[in-house]
Amino acid sequence: MFLQNAWYPVAWGDEIADGFLARKVLGRELALFRDGQGQPRAIANRCPHRFAPLSLGKRIGDAIQCPYHGLHFGADGRCVHNPHGDGSVPDVATPAFPARERHKLIWVWMGEAALATDDIGDGEYAYLDAIDLSVLPRGYMPLACDYRLVIDNLMDPAHTAILHGTTLASEALTRAVPRVWRDGDGIRVESWAPAGKPSFLFGEFLGNHDDPVDHWAASRWQMAGLLSVEAGVTAVGGRREDGLTTRVAHLVTPETETTAHYFWAAARNFRADDAELSDQIQAGITAIFDGEDRWMLEAIERSMDGEDFWALRPAILPFDRGAVMVRRALESAIKAETAPKPVTAVAG
Amino acid sequence: MFLQNAWYPVAWGDEIADGFLARKVLGRELALFRDGQGQPRAIANRCPHRFAPLSLGKRIGDAIQCPYHGLHFGADGRCVHNPHGDGSVPDVATPAFPARERHKLIWVWMGEAALATDDIGDGEYAYLDAIDLSVLPRGYMPLACDYRLVIDNLMDPAHTAILHGTTLASEALTRAVPRVWRDGDGIRVESWAPAGKPSFLFGEFLGNHDDPVDHWAASRWQMAGLLSVEAGVTAVGGRREDGLTTRVAHLVTPETETTAHYFWAAARNFRADDAELSDQIQAGITAIFDGEDRWMLEAIERSMDGEDFWALRPAILPFDRGAVMVRRALESAIKAETAPKPVTAVAG
Amino acid sequence: MFLQNAWYPVAWGDEIADGFLARKVLGRELALFRDGQGQPRAIANRCPHRFAPLSLGKRIGDAIQCPYHGLHFGADGRCVHNPHGDGSVPDVATPAFPARERHKLIWVWMGEAALATDDIGDGEYAYLDAIDLSVLPRGYMPLACDYRLVIDNLMDPAHTAILHGTTLASEALTRAVPRVWRDGDGIRVESWAPAGKPSFLFGEFLGNHDDPVDHWAASRWQMAGLLSVEAGVTAVGGRREDGLTTRVAHLVTPETETTAHYFWAAARNFRADDAELSDQIQAGITAIFDGEDRWMLEAIERSMDGEDFWALRPAILPFDRGAVMVRRALESAIKAETAPKPVTAVAG
Repeated sequence: MFLQNAWYPVAWGDEIADGFLARKVLGRELALFRDGQGQPRAIANRCPHRFAPLSLGKRIGDAIQCPYHGLHFGADGRCVHNPHGDGSVPDVATPAFPARERHKLIWVWMGEAALATDDIGDGEYAYLDAIDLSVLPRGYMPLACDYRLVIDNLMDPAHTAILHGTTLASEALTRAVPRVWRDGDGIRVESWAPAGKPSFLFGEFLGNHDDPVDHWAASRWQMAGLLSVEAGVTAVGGRREDGLTTRVAHLVTPETETTAHYFWAAARNFRADDAELSDQIQAGITAIFDGEDRWMLEAIERSMDGEDFWALRPAILPFDRGAVMVRRALESAIKAETAPKPVTAVAG
Repeated sequence: MFLQNAWYPVAWGDEIADGFLARKVLGRELALFRDGQGQPRAIANRCPHRFAPLSLGKRIGDAIQCPYHGLHFGADGRCVHNPHGDGSVPDVATPAFPARERHKLIWVWMGEAALATDDIGDGEYAYLDAIDLSVLPRGYMPLACDYRLVIDNLMDPAHTAILHGTTLASEALTRAVPRVWRDGDGIRVESWAPAGKPSFLFGEFLGNHDDPVDHWAASRWQMAGLLSVEAGVTAVGGRREDGLTTRVAHLVTPETETTAHYFWAAARNFRADDAELSDQIQAGITAIFDGEDRWMLEAIERSMDGEDFWALRPAILPFDRGAVMVRRALESAIKAETAPKPVTAVAG
Repeated sequence: MFLQNAWYPVAWGDEIADGFLARKVLGRELALFRDGQGQPRAIANRCPHRFAPLSLGKRIGDAIQCPYHGLHFGADGRCVHNPHGDGSVPDVATPAFPARERHKLIWVWMGEAALATDDIGDGEYAYLDAIDLSVLPRGYMPLACDYRLVIDNLMDPAHTAILHGTTLASEALTRAVPRVWRDGDGIRVESWAPAGKPSFLFGEFLGNHDDPVDHWAASRWQMAGLLSVEAGVTAVGGRREDGLTTRVAHLVTPETETTAHYFWAAARNFRADDAELSDQIQAGITAIFDGEDRWMLEAIERSMDGEDFWALRPAILPFDRGAVMVRRALESAIKAETAPKPVTAVAG
């Protein structure tokens, strides 16, 4: 059961050029492409005639030609041309979904089109607009796990101490108790650890692994799978904005109940134009996500073996508060979305 | 749900020599072999004692020796020898099914043996009798799709225009509206396109791609998966029999709900003894079926993802009439076969 | 449906040294390890916090550190340390199961701990205690079949005639009718074949394939998957203990409904210290089990295709009596175990 009425990132903008990208989102396979104006489009990847995947077809001008019988469909999914017989165009369409290109990503709204909001991510990812994709450390990874395991992971600053013990872990942060609060339709978690040693990674950035710093980490979750994670160090007693900050977008979209699409991008407020550092961050984060987080989350998915999260009665520790609030918020939103619509009584 | 009372091709005659061929038909694994008289035989490939696959056993004279405990079974499936203890032969059997060798193929009747007809294919494939298998272009292909997708494909002349655009497509035929009619327990579809350019393939056969010809194509379907497809070109206004004709048998047998066995053979009324041309046709048809039809039908199977054909509400275009009539005829026949048998009331 | 209250072998003792062994038993994944005293331990391989496989974690002294958030668990499965926040230790545990090291193997009791018996195998396998594992022919094999197919196989002396026709088969034994009887909670089957040719294998051991011998074979089954199989030859009219005897432990543990863990060890009363002969037996038995028994049992599992054994109405021959008695005994024991507990009525 997925939340339908939300914006989901489905591709980096540069994954779609002339052709089609077939990608399954919330259990439904989409054909993603650009129309004649270069705008992103998303349609169900299944011809309404005999169910051929349209992504195997061709672009004929602004239309999509089905690879099986050659019916043409407009970017809105409606059939516009029939090459057979007398050429009568049948009144059929493949479902189309609202799509946007925003912050270098393609986003799709799988629910009711009329409910699609103009806002995507409340400006949280606007900083990506100004960065050239060719120099931004970022990636896409398919994951063999429930997308909520990724959210649990990112709303929980505690796992870094062990899972990322030699890279991201900060002993001071591990001991800090995070603050968690609702923030509009989102949830924030923030940890502040004054006067401790920096994590290995920030030690590298600082060129100093020993002198104490103030360390902090903050995650903001928004429906349904958007996470913005900032972390930084500053002089003891100093202001955050005077220190070093990394700002990593973690965007996760359900593919099926047990698989997900994961997009990430890592910006920073220091040495932003240092291409060599960007390359190191690209390689380092890929190694950490792939070899540590993905390794762990896919192992958990196998361990859960299709059983329900709550039915397994997870222990809930103080640092889980953010993750639990997100799960509850998602469950409420899905329940509201699938509730029978109230019928307005009309007086006789 | 399959039609049980019908003849299904299960192997080319030369696929079975001394040993056993294990092949699953309508969801049930058979052991196919030849008896002492060389007649084809089909038994359930499961020993009634401890369920070992009999196809892993040995032929001992005319009997089949189970590979596990060595019980012997006759070609009719009955146990005839027990090598253990006092040698008492248990009164057990593995089910046997009527089998025939006809038109170079092995056919099996999976339903009630008493209902097995003598006729197979109403003579439609008798022309294969006179052709030496070693020179006949033909093949066998396992398909990862519902066998009905193959029938849909072959009852529909329209798909050639796009899927086989550079090989079998004829623009004139594409514009023609096919005639469809019931023909006994079968269904025929026929298209006639006067005075157009030949398809690429017939252009090659004619040695002339430009001069107009009358082009035609005709399919005959018979229960449950037999299709005979003829196509040809003749001089404008001429008689079919004076032109070039290919006659391709397409025989498809369900293996499971989502996989099928596909047999084909391609005869012609011109240069029949030209071995080089036969080789070219062998290679060409294999490439088209494998790279175009199989590619498309398996993609559709994946796209349908286990959903019911009608539940997906397929659009029905004029050229689909033949395919839809076949689906309806199959559904009626299966319904009749599985209906509770009427009880004859006996007056008191 | 498995029998829970029984000892199951899950590993050879030397499979567990410093780290963890993850092994699924009766459908449940265990983490196996040794505690600080070297005693074997078995816990559910799933952290009760966020379900990470504990076998991916580290040993920290006598505790197990979860690889995700670093909670520590004692060898009894209870959480003993929390590195986060104020360090409060949550009152959670992962299930622990009684484990023993006996006869060179690690055994686990998956049912109620209070019912775990002190006895394992009624002394049947005590002879393994005195043999050095480094010279004992033995092995472990994962099997893609229901563990009961292995028991059927080993309680049935008849299959050797065919499946092992060139190695273990004895014509005289094949003709013998085995005696079967209950023996406590176990079942015995025994065959005695006087004055026949030895099997190929015993012919090799004797250095004489032709002279007649008395041949015998005896299996003892105990709940749930323990089989001790002795076979031997002796001079015609002689005593068993004066002849050559092999004593093979075949121990099979369900992994899932359709897969199993299989452990074997082969002792003998002749040339016990002949390392070259041990190597030959090691290689020979591995080849026979892998290439003949495993080959057959996995083919049967595929042939049964998830259908119930009794629903398939197996033929029952005289030599099946032992195997059928075991299946019935297992079914009764499982039924008794899963029956609703009687409520003791208390008079008012």
